[in-house]
Amino acid sequence: MDMAAVTKDETYMREAKKQAMKAYALGEVPIGCVIVYEDKIIARGYNRRNTDKNTLSHAELNAIRKASRKLGDWRLEDCTLYVTLEPCQMCAGAIVQARIPRVVIAAMNPKAGCAGSVVNLLEMDGFNHKVQVTRGILEEECSSMLSGFFRELREKKSVKNRRKERNGNDKTGISGIGKKGNGIT
Amino acid sequence: MDMAAVTKDETYMREAKKQAMKAYALGEVPIGCVIVYEDKIIARGYNRRNTDKNTLSHAELNAIRKASRKLGDWRLEDCTLYVTLEPCQMCAGAIVQARIPRVVIAAMNPKAGCAGSVVNLLEMDGFNHKVQVTRGILEEECSSMLSGFFRELREKKSVKNRRKERNGNDKTGISGIGKKGNGIT
Repeated sequence: MDMAAVTKDETYMREAKKQAMKAYALGEVPIGCVIVYEDKIIARGYNRRNTDKNTLSHAELNAIRKASRKLGDWRLEDCTLYVTLEPCQMCAGAIVQARIPRVVIAAMNPKAGCAGSVVNLLEMDGFNHKVQVTRGILEEECSSMLSGFFRELREKKSVKNRRKERNGNDKTGISGIGKKGNGIT
Repeated sequence: MDMAAVTKDETYMREAKKQAMKAYALGEVPIGCVIVYEDKIIARGYNRRNTDKNTLSHAELNAIRKASRKLGDWRLEDCTLYVTLEPCQMCAGAIVQARIPRVVIAAMNPKAGCAGSVVNLLEMDGFNHKVQVTRGILEEECSSMLSGFFRELREKKSVKNRRKERNGNDKTGISGIGKKGNGIT
């Protein structure tokens, strides 16, 4: 890939990171997403799962819904999706269903990601659509943002001495990012 | 499983089929879903992808969104989801994300299903949540409904002599259901 393309990817990923910061500000796991069509951002989304009390309110799904509305089509065939963390099974599935041709990922999610970590739904032979995936754009920045978020969360919980919540509540695997020994840090 | 449980599953699947018929009436691929909590249907959904021009408007996602709203929680931990066709990758992913403990499926989708056909996202070891899956409840009825829909669609297209659409447009794999040689008929 040439430098101009890398710079462009970084520019759009920085916009996805801005979305993630909105999630951070709400106390949500900071994940952000933008969708680009004809060199313009047509949809933005960030994780609002707890705020909206809605399973579907992940960054990617929020952006895909908006992009569908914008283009008036459930097919997003000429779009590129930028996301700060490797998608989960639901969001990776939605990307394939929307036939998005290219996805750019910042940080991987070794314990729960579905674009190569636990499973790779974006490049699976059995499906009618395969996605071209670029990984590692602004990886360190986006990974630091996540590990900072979880460190802060742990500190808050420690202060409040909420032992039960600290030990049992995270089942996403995302909180493992940024901890020693998972290959990201 | 005892007979009472089978009868209960059939009763709820019949409600899911009613939802599928709403999709049929709109000219959408007839797929329907209900979500049951404490022995009551708390959410219904059907495929409205073309009508809504929205990637996310599958039967299961429409029902999951409503159930989240109803229970005020993104976790649907004590619910059972009934669906007339094996879920796609996006919907199977959403079921895992919502931590739904049990899913009941009528017909399988050999070419595109993600609950055992192409891949099995509902019972995958690598994820933090595994779903208990029951298959084949009202299978024949729901499969006939789908094959009838696609037969009608082919006939309409044939009459209109839309050769291009007939040969190229279906990438879902769903239209294979009910055709000879795919193991369902």
